[in-house]
This record gives sequence, structure tokens and C-alpha cells, in this order.
Amino acid sequence: MRYDIAIIGTGPAGVSAAITAKIRGKTVLLLGSAALSPKITKAHRIDNYPGLPAVTGAELAEHLRGHLSAMEISVTESQVGAVYAMGDWFGLQAGEEMLEARAVIAATGVVQGKLLAGEDEFLGRGVSCCATCDGRFYKGKTVAVIGQSAEAPAEAEYLAEIAQNVLYFPVPAGGGTPAARENITVINEKPLEIIGENAVTGLRTDKAVYGAACVFVLRDAVMPDKLFPGAETDGVHLKVDNEMRTNIPGLFACGDVAGKPYQYIKAAGQGNIAALSAVNYLRELDNK
Amino acid sequence: MRYDIAIIGTGPAGVSAAITAKIRGKTVLLLGSAALSPKITKAHRIDNYPGLPAVTGAELAEHLRGHLSAMEISVTESQVGAVYAMGDWFGLQAGEEMLEARAVIAATGVVQGKLLAGEDEFLGRGVSCCATCDGRFYKGKTVAVIGQSAEAPAEAEYLAEIAQNVLYFPVPAGGGTPAARENITVINEKPLEIIGENAVTGLRTDKAVYGAACVFVLRDAVMPDKLFPGAETDGVHLKVDNEMRTNIPGLFACGDVAGKPYQYIKAAGQGNIAALSAVNYLRELDNK
Repeated sequence: MRYDIAIIGTGPAGVSAAITAKIRGKTVLLLGSAALSPKITKAHRIDNYPGLPAVTGAELAEHLRGHLSAMEISVTESQVGAVYAMGDWFGLQAGEEMLEARAVIAATGVVQGKLLAGEDEFLGRGVSCCATCDGRFYKGKTVAVIGQSAEAPAEAEYLAEIAQNVLYFPVPAGGGTPAARENITVINEKPLEIIGENAVTGLRTDKAVYGAACVFVLRDAVMPDKLFPGAETDGVHLKVDNEMRTNIPGLFACGDVAGKPYQYIKAAGQGNIAALSAVNYLRELDNK
Repeated sequence: MRYDIAIIGTGPAGVSAAITAKIRGKTVLLLGSAALSPKITKAHRIDNYPGLPAVTGAELAEHLRGHLSAMEISVTESQVGAVYAMGDWFGLQAGEEMLEARAVIAATGVVQGKLLAGEDEFLGRGVSCCATCDGRFYKGKTVAVIGQSAEAPAEAEYLAEIAQNVLYFPVPAGGGTPAARENITVINEKPLEIIGENAVTGLRTDKAVYGAACVFVLRDAVMPDKLFPGAETDGVHLKVDNEMRTNIPGLFACGDVAGKPYQYIKAAGQGNIAALSAVNYLRELDNK
């Protein structure tokens, strides 16, 4: 099935875009976590989401989930590795699947913090941001996982079914870990650098150097130039105009990935604009 | 008193801007209707304000009023006639008062519908959009009032205390009218053109021509180039960048006046951006 609009991310931007796109009669593929963005849920208190004074992040997430459910919008829990512009549609690589949509709205949030040394350099040559996509290439090998997302422990467990050994580095140290398995070692050290020559050979921490054929860096968000090849970016942000259009026709962005300020209500507002711009884009495409 | 930030308009954009500005420790002057924008209240049902599924306009307004009140933000019910950039502060003409603020956020909404023929041409030469500002110039004269805002009947009553005769044209015809007074005539005809030569001499409707020294056109919103002299506009909109900055340093815009789409959640999101941009502007000013 080719959806009208695929929306990547389930923070306030993605949820808002999905609601407005559905109201406008479009078929919507909303990709992300059904529990909604961990960044919302973790907020202690949000005072400036007009209409919901002094809510906790968990309460806001509850309100948003209720809204999605009232509108019968479901969340598809796939991690998108890359989005390819194919002309008048997009291919979204999600694990082994290729999903299809006529327009795409990026509501992915931003990578928090700096990249590791070597991360950008070795991406695709032993650095991966998607266990589901790339795990199968490391059968019988030792892999390292830098676990910074809520889903990272589960992905490490999946990798342990394929790889010989999984070295798991929770970020921050002491964070969530995968279930105990013979071939998973949890190492509470701070990853500093991904090392190698033509391809990755290992990971250096503040305490030691570990050999690994691949380093999986599992964050909640991926650098937008990796996720959206060909899109103009400005550091961790996709460049957008006032209508939330990127330089790629049919690709829109909203929320944190579209730039600062990083605020819930700003994200929700931009999600609305992005959805309506996508609706206009589809109408123009149909009229061609 | 010179406020840090004056916010003109009490729709979702203005309310959102006020909430965020207050959280950031700024003194806020929120100007508009304490009942909030009539445009919200009149909405039958709003489905895409994330977190508040299927609310009526009245319910959304109630939520927003509750939020303002929880944060101890009050609304000042003055109608601003013009905003003058004075360098590092602004003068806001509100009736006979001149209010002062270091930064201004325009959240005024947009003029609905077309201007009358002659309206733009004669503005300031017998066309006024503010009874409180200009009424006193028409002592003993006949004036016409085109009443399109919720406050128009009250303003016509005020004019009747000064002018000899007030011709009141409710828009739409049959709409709200001022209390009965000897010198107020309510005329349910459709105003078509403001006529005159060097200055206004009267008003032509679909049925007749009426002599008048001034025509007060009382809408909820004023054309932004009239309200903000010197600001770059695009028709009924103020031109803004992604940070909601206009071409005038210290003047920001959000919501409908900042452009389409005309949506509640988009307005609320932009209000947040405008407030944070104003906060940054003030910090830069202080660091100079």
C-alpha cells in the first residue's frame, strides 16, 4: 500500500501532523513509538502548552494518545533507517521492509548531544544506527551497542540472537540494559571514539579499547542528512521555509528537527502547518 | 510603566505568547478581549488542537482562560490604534493613552473579507478604525459606523455622546446594534463604498447614499500596515521569518496575522516562538 502521507516521529509534531492529515481525508502512516516520544514522557512539568496548564510529560502524552485514539489513528512501531525520494513518491526503509508514501513529514526530533569521534566517518562502514537493518551482517561477530534510546535494550537482545558477542554500553552509564544473556556484556564506561581504518575495528571508552566489527549507535533520532539523503540540513536540523517545506518536493519537517526553539507547543503548531502543506502538495500533484 | 513585552490579541497566538513570556520572567501587557478572541468562541468544533480532542470553540476559550488565570496573567481591554517603533521601545496608542513596551508581539488576527471601496484611500481623512482615538474630532457632526466587531455597538454609543448623529450599519445586516438613543439610527443596508474628494463626504450602500464627516470601520482586526507603520506586509499579513521576526527590530508576529494556515494550534505554536524570540531580542538589547 502506498500511503498519502508518512509521518516519522510521535512527539507533539508528529501527532499534530497525523491528526490534521487525517481530518483532511488522507491515508496516514504514523511511524514511531506507540507510547509516544520518550522525550515527552520524561518531562517533569510543562507549563506552556496553552489549554493544558501545568501538565507532566506523562499527562501530555496521555492527552495526545487519547486524541490519536479518539481519531482512530494507530502508530506503526517501525524504525526508519532512510527515506528515499523516488520522484512523486518516497521509499521508507524500515528494517527489511520498504514502506511507500506520496509525501513524508519528518518529525524525528533531534540528536541530543554531540556525535562520537569517528561516528560520522565510519557510518555505513561498521557504524549503524539500526539493529534491525544491519544486524544480520554481523553473524558470529562481536558487536558493540551504544544504547541511548528506550528501544536500545530490546535491539541489543535481538542482536544477541545473531552476533557472537554483544558489548552493551548504556548511555548515560547506569541506564537501562538488556535482559541478562550469556553473550551480552554490559559495560558502564563512557564511549569516546569509534576506531578503525577502512572499516570499524572497535570502540575506545574512557577506560579501555574494545574490539568490535560494528558499533550500533542507538539514539532516539538519527542525523537528518543520513535519514533523508539529499535534504538540505543545518547541523542537526532540516532546513525548512515558513510552510515547513524542505528542499525536496514532498518532504516536510516539523518540531525539533525543523529547528529551535525546542518546545512542545511549537512542535504541535508546526505539525499542523506541515500536514496542510503536504495536503496542498498532494493536490498540486494530482492536478498535474 | 514600560513593559518588557506587549502582546496585541487574545486568540491562541497571543495567549500562548503571554504564557511563555511570563514563564521567562518578563513583564507582559496582554491587550485584547478578556473573553478572548470572538473567533475562537464562535468555532463550533475544533478537532485538531492536539491534546484537546473535539472541543467547541467555547471550551477551548475556557481552557485558555483557565491557563491565563492559573498563571496570573490578566488581559487589558484596550484597543490599540497604532504601534510606533521608537528605537529601543514602542509606543502603543490605545485611545488617548500611550502605552509603552520594549518589544511587541502582534497576534491581531486578520481582517476578514475585503476592504470597502474607498476605505484604504480615505484612511486618516475621514475613515477611522478607532472610535476612542478619533471620535472627539467629530463633535456636532454626523458620523457613520460600520459595525463588524463585538465592541462596535458600545463604541457607537460612545460616539453618540460626541457626534450630533450616528448612522449605524451592522455587518452582517441584522447583527448586534447599540442601545436605543435619540441620535443613533440603525440602518440595515449593505455598505459598498466610502465616498468623498479630499476627505470623506459619505457612505454609499446598496440602497442609498448617506452624508457623513467620518466613517468608523470597526472590525476585530485592523490592516497590519495601518496598525504597525513601517512594517513590511503581504496583504493582510505581516511578513515574518522562521523566528517570527518582522522587519522592525523588536516587533514579532504570530497566528493568523503572520500568514496561513489559519489554525488554532499553528497560532499557539507561533505564539511560543514569537515570545522566545522577543526574550532573545531583549537579552541582546541588554547586552549592548
